[in-house]
This record gives sequence, structure tokens and C-alpha cells, in this order.
Amino acid sequence: MNRNEKRYSTEVTLAKRLAAEAGEIMLRYFDTAAARPHLKSDRTIVTRADTEINSLVIERLAAETPDYSIRGEEESRDVAGAEYTWVCDPVDGTMPFAKSIPISTFSLALVDGRGRSVVGVVYDPFQRRLYEAVVGEGASLNGRSISVSSADSLENAFVDMELWINHEEGVTFDDPRDRLNKAGAKVTTFCSAVIAGCFVAQGSYEGMLFGQSKPEDIAALAVIVTEAGGKVTDLLGNDQRYDRNIKGAVVSNGLVHQALLEVTQKMNYISEN
Amino acid sequence: MNRNEKRYSTEVTLAKRLAAEAGEIMLRYFDTAAARPHLKSDRTIVTRADTEINSLVIERLAAETPDYSIRGEEESRDVAGAEYTWVCDPVDGTMPFAKSIPISTFSLALVDGRGRSVVGVVYDPFQRRLYEAVVGEGASLNGRSISVSSADSLENAFVDMELWINHEEGVTFDDPRDRLNKAGAKVTTFCSAVIAGCFVAQGSYEGMLFGQSKPEDIAALAVIVTEAGGKVTDLLGNDQRYDRNIKGAVVSNGLVHQALLEVTQKMNYISEN
Repeated sequence: MNRNEKRYSTEVTLAKRLAAEAGEIMLRYFDTAAARPHLKSDRTIVTRADTEINSLVIERLAAETPDYSIRGEEESRDVAGAEYTWVCDPVDGTMPFAKSIPISTFSLALVDGRGRSVVGVVYDPFQRRLYEAVVGEGASLNGRSISVSSADSLENAFVDMELWINHEEGVTFDDPRDRLNKAGAKVTTFCSAVIAGCFVAQGSYEGMLFGQSKPEDIAALAVIVTEAGGKVTDLLGNDQRYDRNIKGAVVSNGLVHQALLEVTQKMNYISEN
Repeated sequence: MNRNEKRYSTEVTLAKRLAAEAGEIMLRYFDTAAARPHLKSDRTIVTRADTEINSLVIERLAAETPDYSIRGEEESRDVAGAEYTWVCDPVDGTMPFAKSIPISTFSLALVDGRGRSVVGVVYDPFQRRLYEAVVGEGASLNGRSISVSSADSLENAFVDMELWINHEEGVTFDDPRDRLNKAGAKVTTFCSAVIAGCFVAQGSYEGMLFGQSKPEDIAALAVIVTEAGGKVTDLLGNDQRYDRNIKGAVVSNGLVHQALLEVTQKMNYISEN
């Protein structure tokens, strides 16, 4: 790949083109019989939009960046010794999508050899919002620079909580919503970790808690939110790699990160794995 | 008012016309500076769309049905001895609306002298979905008859939970989400009780729990969901009037109603009033 003046510009261009195409597929299938969900073996759901976008992503990225691995939520392509891995959630918010609720996004990240997200692109086709970030170069929404909020307390903070029980993984936890409510936060669950994380990046939300092991949901956010001035860690407050399974995520404006960690660390988070 | 063959047809026509106009106002202000929220004395928020739609509703209904009272979330008009009361939530889902999240609806009900909703109209301008019902005549979405789901268990059920702490009213409660999760339900919080209730009416969701005292959020749902074959009660399982403050609401497909009541009745629901 050529490196222009801007870092990763070829990859960013490629990711944005895929995002636009993925958005068209989502809009074409939204609120039609083709959006009807199928149950996967882990009891989560998948729609034709998920599989079709995932296939498109693999086909295109394999052709244009043959040396990179690709990890998609529905299908992957492993290149031994690859320097970079693309990590894609074709439709984040499959549940709302399947129920004709316009809360779904396409998410694609480029993760380097140390597991760090260096490029992130998220596209919300319903609002026509394209979020993008390159490590060290800031984050933007439709070309305009964005930054996280300056709220430094959970009082009146907006926090989205995406802590689903994953039956397959045998994970269980106490619900931190009551603790967040008592701290004065407003807590939603939109069923799209990615869109809620983008709200953090643009300063509309203070935090998002994610309880699953899928890196596809967090990889693009990791660079977008960080470049917008926020912070992304695992549920224990540690940095983590985004090219393999993760330990959930705490996504925040940075200022309330410690307060959110205190809530999650009081959770009875038990993995039987 | 004239009564045509269809019951309440004049009121339905009037409500639908207002819904269309309200939808236009919402779309005009959505994602603009005019959607910026202001904090009300009860610590909930209001936007220019809420107040403008509420004013339009009062002006129009006072002119066309001068003998009816009007109860709006932002402003009301009391007619002594009125046989009917209009009950309106100008923008349900003010929070998502203010954050440019397209999860907001207009809701208007006609409530009779016994406190029973006899006409309900809900309009979602983002999806261009008009839900309507007249007592005894069924419920429809964009003119097509709708009915609730046939799921009879919380296992794999979709339940939306709108149980906000209302600081002003001093209400507190334990969070039933964990209990719902353990029963196998998928629990969301979209911040719009009305849209989630409509999902119950159209069979996409099994239930919705509402924890506040505002009848404006539930009055239209009460007839739409019931006419779609579902059930609407207060949090204790009792019928209630929709022209005065309510004791929350359990909205369901009927089949999981008892299971939801068992969850809510285990809640530590304490009102200091």
C-alpha cells in the first residue's frame, strides 16, 4: 500500500467506500422481509444484511489488501503473519435493524500488529453520519472535528449500557443500572454499542458499557473515541488488543472513566470460561 | 361533534391531522440547534418542538372541540364538567430527539368520562408510521390491522423498560432488568415508552414497563395495544384512568402480562407521596 502524506489514507478511503456500500445494503433491506432475523448458535441473531455486507467486506478487502487478515462478525479471513487485521461489524444493532428500528451502523477498524486500532470508520446510514479517525490525527463526523463532552461527574451523565448475558459464554453479572441511576446518570440500552460509543465521541453521551467479548463492536470506537479525547479500556480499566476476544469495554469521555470503572468493578462479573 | 357510522370518526380525523402536523414540526427541528433541550423543574427536559407542538394541539383542539378538556405534557386546558379529555404527549422520547436519535413520536388520546381511552393516535415521523385505534374497532398501522405477538413466555421475549427515577416525586425502585434477563428476556431502554408500546401492539415486542405517573405517555397506547389484542394495566395489574396521574404501566401482549407483573411486584417500588 502506498502511504500518502496522511497516514493510512489508502485504507481510510477503502473503508469509507465500503461503509457507503454497506449503508446502501442496510437501507435496501431495512423494514423488509429480508431483514427478518435468524438465530445463531450463540442465540444472537443475524440477518441477510449482516451476511451480505460481511461477504462484500471480505471480498473487497481480500482483493485490495491481500496481506491483511480480516475478522468479521459473521465470517473471517486469516492471513498468516499479517501485519494488520481489519475488524468489521457489518451491522451493529442487528436487533433494532431486524425490528425496523433505525439504530444500526456499519463499523470497520484497521488494527495493527500490537492489537491497537489505527483506523476506525463507522457509518450510520439512517442519519447519514460518517465517523472516522486515524490514530494521532483526531476524529471527525461528516468531515467536521468532534470531541467528547466536558462533564466530569455521573450526575446528569448519559450512559448507554450494553451488558447482555451471553448464554453461550456462561457469563453472568449483577445489573449496574441501579447504581448508575443512584449516581444521577440517565441510562439507556439502544442495542447498538457502536452508535452509543459514537455519541460519546461526539459529546452527546458521557459513557458506554459493553459486556461482551466481541472485538468487532469496539475496534473502530477504540480509535474514534480516543481521538475525540475520550478513553476506551476493558471492563477492568486495562488497555486491550482489538484483534482478538476482548473483556468487554468501558467507553467514556475520559473524565467519568474512573467513576464508571468503580461501577463495573462492583459488578458480580463471573465468566465460567 | 357529529357521529358518523364509525365511532369517533371526527375525533380520529382531527387527531390524525394534528399528528401529521406535529410530525412535520419534529422533522423540521430534528438535529438542529432548535432541538437543544432545556431542563424543567422536575429535572426532565423539554425542547422547542415539545412546546410548539403542545401549543398547536391546544389551539386546534380548543377551536374544534371546545367542550373537551386537554391535558398536554407541557400545557393543559381545563373545561369544567367536560365529557371527554384529550391527553397528549407532544414529543415522546424528548431525550433521543434532543440527541438527534430518531426514536420519538407524537401521541394523542381521547379519554372518556370514566377515564378510559377511546381513541388513540401515535405518529412516528421518522418511519412515517401512523398507529391508530378506536375502542371496539381494532388497531392499525398505516391502515393495516395489527395484532400482538403470540409468545407466551419471557424466554426470548423482548421487553422495553422505561423505569426512570423521578427525582421530583421521590420514587425509587430496584432494577428488575436482572430478573428479566435471568428469565431469558432481551431488555432495551429506548427512552420512548410510546414507541416501545407500539412495538408491542404490532407484535415486535412482548412487553413494556413504565415507571412514571404521566398519563400522557400511556393514554394512546392503552387503546392501541388493547385493540391489538394486548393488555395495559398499572404496575400492580389494575385498570386505571388515563385523565389523571397513573401508577406506571405494564403494557404487554397479554400472554406475558402475569409474568411481567410478577417481576414488577417484586420491585421495591416506594413512593414517598
